[in-house]
Parts: sequence; C-alpha cells; structure tokens
Amino acid sequence: MNRQLVISTDCHAGLPPGDYLEYLDPEFRERYQHDVQVQLDAARETRKLMLVEDINARWRQGIEKQLTGAWDHEQRIDVLDHDGIAAEVIFPDGITENNSPPFGAGLGVGPQGGEYATQWAGARAHNRWLAELCQMAPERRRGVAVVPATWDVDEAVAEVRWAVANGLGSIMIPVMWQPHAPYHHPRYEPLWAVCQDLDVVVHFHSGPAPSHEYFGDWPPAPGQQPLPGGMGIYVCEAVWAVVRPLTFFIWGGIFERYPELRVVITEATTTWAPGYLEHLDARYVDWHVTAKLGDYRSHLSMKPSEYFRRNVRLGTFFARGEAEKRHEIGVGCMMWGSDYPHPEGTWPHTRDRMVETFRGLPAAETEAMLGGTAAELYGFDVAKLAPLVERIGPDKAPFAG
Amino acid sequence: MNRQLVISTDCHAGLPPGDYLEYLDPEFRERYQHDVQVQLDAARETRKLMLVEDINARWRQGIEKQLTGAWDHEQRIDVLDHDGIAAEVIFPDGITENNSPPFGAGLGVGPQGGEYATQWAGARAHNRWLAELCQMAPERRRGVAVVPATWDVDEAVAEVRWAVANGLGSIMIPVMWQPHAPYHHPRYEPLWAVCQDLDVVVHFHSGPAPSHEYFGDWPPAPGQQPLPGGMGIYVCEAVWAVVRPLTFFIWGGIFERYPELRVVITEATTTWAPGYLEHLDARYVDWHVTAKLGDYRSHLSMKPSEYFRRNVRLGTFFARGEAEKRHEIGVGCMMWGSDYPHPEGTWPHTRDRMVETFRGLPAAETEAMLGGTAAELYGFDVAKLAPLVERIGPDKAPFAG
Repeated sequence: MNRQLVISTDCHAGLPPGDYLEYLDPEFRERYQHDVQVQLDAARETRKLMLVEDINARWRQGIEKQLTGAWDHEQRIDVLDHDGIAAEVIFPDGITENNSPPFGAGLGVGPQGGEYATQWAGARAHNRWLAELCQMAPERRRGVAVVPATWDVDEAVAEVRWAVANGLGSIMIPVMWQPHAPYHHPRYEPLWAVCQDLDVVVHFHSGPAPSHEYFGDWPPAPGQQPLPGGMGIYVCEAVWAVVRPLTFFIWGGIFERYPELRVVITEATTTWAPGYLEHLDARYVDWHVTAKLGDYRSHLSMKPSEYFRRNVRLGTFFARGEAEKRHEIGVGCMMWGSDYPHPEGTWPHTRDRMVETFRGLPAAETEAMLGGTAAELYGFDVAKLAPLVERIGPDKAPFAG
Repeated sequence: MNRQLVISTDCHAGLPPGDYLEYLDPEFRERYQHDVQVQLDAARETRKLMLVEDINARWRQGIEKQLTGAWDHEQRIDVLDHDGIAAEVIFPDGITENNSPPFGAGLGVGPQGGEYATQWAGARAHNRWLAELCQMAPERRRGVAVVPATWDVDEAVAEVRWAVANGLGSIMIPVMWQPHAPYHHPRYEPLWAVCQDLDVVVHFHSGPAPSHEYFGDWPPAPGQQPLPGGMGIYVCEAVWAVVRPLTFFIWGGIFERYPELRVVITEATTTWAPGYLEHLDARYVDWHVTAKLGDYRSHLSMKPSEYFRRNVRLGTFFARGEAEKRHEIGVGCMMWGSDYPHPEGTWPHTRDRMVETFRGLPAAETEAMLGGTAAELYGFDVAKLAPLVERIGPDKAPFAG
C-alpha cells in the first residue's frame, strides 16, 4: 500500500443541546429540558469570563457545516475522509458546539460534576445514541461508553455488559473519583474483572482537574474573574489529574491481578511519561530510600514501567518533540489522535500536521503510532479497511521526508 | 584546594519529645505536655500499621549516639565532619526520633495538619530553638524557619522579619494550602515582597500529600490497614504535591512580579523537571492548543522554564541517573543534600554515595551541585569555610573517577 492507515484514537461526538430527549428514560426528560437552558446560559457566562467568545466565533467561521459532523453521520464521514482518517475512537463532548451528554455525563463525568441518578441517566442516553452512530459505520467507529463507575460498581458492570452487547467495546470512567473510594479500593474489582473478561478498553480522558483553586470558586460566581494565570495552572494540572488514576492502578496492583486489562489515557500529552516512569521504577527498585514506610511493592511482580508498557496506551495528537522522544515514552504505547471536532486538535489541517509530526521517522514506527497499535488494541479489521485506506488515506511519500 | 566544598541543602533538626517546652509561649505549655504523649502514641500506632517498627529499630542500631545530632550541637558537628559536609541547610523533623516541632508545625505544617493558634505557637517555639542552634555555628548553618503562612499573611510577614533579625534567612511554608487560598492569590503579595526585599529563600519541603486516599482515612482509625500499595502511591504523589505550588507561582506571575524571589523545592527528586518544564513551555508557546481557554500567558514575559532557571533551585540527594540528566534538569538548579538524620538519605555512607553519584562528571559541575550553587544562594562565606573544608572535606580525586 502507498497509503497510510490512520486511526484517530481521540475524536468526539455528541448531540446538540436538547436532542438527547428521545434517548433519555422518560422520568428524566422534563428535568433535561429545563437543564439544557440552564447549562447553555452557564456555558455562555463562563466563555465570557474566560474571554473566549470571539476566539470560538472566529474559529467556527466557515466550518460551521463540517462541525455538524460532531453528531451527523454523513457529515462526519466526509470530514474524516477529508482528513485521511480511516477509523476513529469516539469520546463524548464538543465544547464549542455545546453538544455534551445530559446532566454532566461527558468528559467531566463523576461525583464532582453531577448526581447519582441523573448522571447515570445522562450516560445511558449518550451511550444509546453513540451505539446507533457507530452502527452506521461499524468498521470505522469505536464508541467509548460513558460509565460513572464510582457510585455503584454493580451498575457499572451491568453497563459494561450492555455496552459490549451493543457494539461499544470501550468505556470511559471518571478521572476524579473524590469523594468516593479511589480505584485501588477492592470495591472496584468486579469492574476490572468484567473489562478483562470482555476485552473492554478502560479510558481516562483529560478534562477534569481540581479547578476551583484556579478560579477562587468553581463554577465561577456571576462576574467572578479567574485569578490571573488560572487557566495556565489548569492546563498543566489537568494532565496530572488524568495520570493520577494510573498511579493508583499500578501501585494498587490492578495490572498484577488483571494482566490483560488495557487502560488508555487520552489527550494528556506524553511528555510526563519518561520522568514519571523513572520515578516509579526508582521507588520500586531503590528500596532503601523509602524502607521506613513499610512494604508497598512485594505484591508487584514487575517494575511499574513494565506494567505501563504492557497494559497502558496513550492516545493524543503529538507535537514533533513527542514523536522524537518516542523511545523514552514507549513507541509501542503511543497512538495518534486528531481530536476532531475540538479546536485544539489537528483538524482541519490534519494531513499537514501529521506529516510535520512524523516526517523522517522509521516507517514502521510511524505506521504503529498512526494506526497499527490502535488497530490491534481496538480490534479494527485492517483488511476490511484497506480499500478505504487506498481511497482516502494520506500518501506515505511525504512521511519519508 | 584538593578538598571538595560540600554543602548539604537538606538536613533536619528538632528537639526530642517534650523538650520544646521552654521555647513555647506559656499559654501553650500545658497543652503541649498533654499532646506530646498523644502524638507519641499515634506515631507508634502508625508505625505498627505500616509494619516499619523493626525497620526503624534495625536502622537505629549502633548509631543511636550519632542520631542525637538531630538536636545536640557537638554531636551534630561530629556527624557532619565525618560526612565531609562543611555547611548545611536545616529543616525541622526527624521521623525516627519523633523530634518534631509542637502541634504539627513540622514538614506537614499547614491547615491540613493543625489549628491556627497552636501551629503558630509550635512554629515559633521551633524557630526560637533553631536560631540558637544556628548561632552555635553560624558559618556552617542556615536554619529554615517554619512559617504557617496560609492563615494570616501579616503574621507571616512579621515572622519573616523576626527570622531575619535572628539569623534565619530562610523560611518553609505549607506545601498544601487547602482549604485556604492558593499561592497565586493576591493576599500573599506582602509575603513575596518581604522575602524578596530581605533576600529570604522560600522553601517547600516534600512530605505532605492528599494521603487519606491511599489509606482509606488519615490518620488511620485504630487497626486500619493501608490499602495495598498505598505507600507506593504516596511516595509518588508527594513529589507531585510539592511541585504544585511551583505551578501556581509560575502561571500566577509571582516570579514576574518578584524577579529576585528565590524558591527551593527540597527532597522532591529532580526527574519530574524535564517533562514538567517541557509541558509548561509547550502551553506557553503553542498557543493554538488551548486558545479556546482564553489568555493565561500575556502577563508573563518569559517562558515557564526561564523562570524556573532564574528563580528556582532543587535541593536533594541525587541518584546517579539524575546527575547524568543534569543538563535536561538544569545543572545550575541542582543542589545536593544528605538528608541527615533521615534513614532515606546518604548518611552514614555519605562520602561513598557522593562519589557514586558524581564520579566522572566535569569538576566544575560537580562543585556547583555539591556546594557552589548553595553557597551563593544561601550566602555561605566560602573563604571562611575554606580551612574547615581543608580539614574535613572529601578528597576531590575519587570524583574525577
């Protein structure tokens, strides 16, 4: 093949405000209709506070139609074809289009962002719609079901089974579990067991962070300005927040007990990985330093970085510098993503951006990061995708540089 | 000189349980006497839970006398001479000896670990004693005054002035400010101003972390076991926790407004720095990625890593791998420390450990990391120390390797 197989491991889709109504269980519909307007008002207020109304408006100019691919099947196919992307992994939420699942059951899902009953209702509504969207192009789409796992693990296990039965082989669970138990607590064991048994990939997608500190209060009171630099703090700490669960998984022995469990951390950069893994390994190997704290490693048969290489993948758009550091990070763990339709992603300049990132690297490594690793992890049928790749995939020549 | 000037930027001292009595304001003495026993009981309980009673006992065997250097002037001089250390920076707390300031005003100082009035009383008692200890060898000792700054900034400013007037040119403030305002809040401006004006070095020393999650609850209920791997999570997250304030300082513009303010992060490893700085710089330079979040950088005239190089130093014992990565971390920011009398440090094998770490590196860089950078930062008089270095300093030859 002269064309590159490209799989985006970080895309987003969700219905526009109000349109989840028919997917919701009837008892939540009235509240949803009320909440939609409240949330739209709050989002507008927040955007004003953060001075980004005009940035959003400028960005959307001329691409309004393509942005409807955030929920419209045909438009989405057109956009991905244009980008050269053969297949994609689909998370919820579109910030500029306000197309998020009901009741906060999107990227910020979890006890920090909603209540038990409504978050579950919102998650189920989104999952039902997402299953339909994926069924329209099953060879090209893997939907990530939203599972607010921290409230009730039995319910989470049931939703995993429902997701698999409905073609969604991936789940996303809350980045921030507080004030519930952290993920190395024994209560979650049935969830890891069912995910391993059914080959379901567990995702943490960046977004949540303990952000009230950056603003004074969150959500901001009317008229409240963020503290200067608050959003700079947020963009740094959001990475830390989404890596925290991984620290708990590794030391808590979850990968030891579930050696085939796969975890993906999405849109959280990759620059943290080398130093992070070096530190974890040092604490595992150089026992002297923390012997006074008691035994925290004899239940682990491997070094933390070995669990990472075996069980963990990172899905995100890469900067050139990240591609150059691929061996320190772990080239087999890195999976590219476009982040369509988010403005921070590569779309609508994906083809050029991909080449900038990967030009001149060994072809086999580029192919793994752009699609091969994702194909294997998510079970895409590469043979079935081949004719599509021949039609829409980017030429391999420019990558050779 | 054939001998190496060695300055330990991470040592600890504090009085044994009960001995702070005469340094405390009278109204707190009765409560202190009661609390000493309560805290000793709690510490014993914790050590039992963490299964480290015997590790501690084994470690102390045969070095009980040298451990009294944690508070005894003469013994401390002997120990440091034996280690080849000419001068030191002194933080509170000795975990194995229970020699911590009253009322939790040690490494865990701050609103998480105590109450307003008693923490201030404990901090002042420790600072009074520490000033005396440093006066016994002023050319060799820099004491770090404990300042529970988050409750009342005026009181913190007054304590800084007291510290400077009493020979303590450094302060340590809480790593965790919660539930008070974070450090980029305008309320702290007078503190940064007085520290810059009086050339006072501000320290964050690792130790605190949001550790109730690792145990279920903290302090543990009687008989409660930590969750498996809990301490592994803690040793990783304690690094993150002590770096958080730096993120707030940088994005909050504190180094922009106070260009001569110096901040030291102590005993927090250094492996996090390259990835951390790369991420901060990327968010500063690659605006596209987070433009939708509004302007959080135009109040900063330099890249985050430039503030780091100018205003920040790291004080800790190094692993060999850290010394090898010194250029990525910032060789001019790295200051060695022995951590005496903590068991995780280099003592009582300091001379060998130093050589292991630095052997074969360029002499000028080793000299900077072992003493030169610290001498400049803390204002040690190198000429005055020279005869002492000639007598007790380690031979330079083995470092050439």
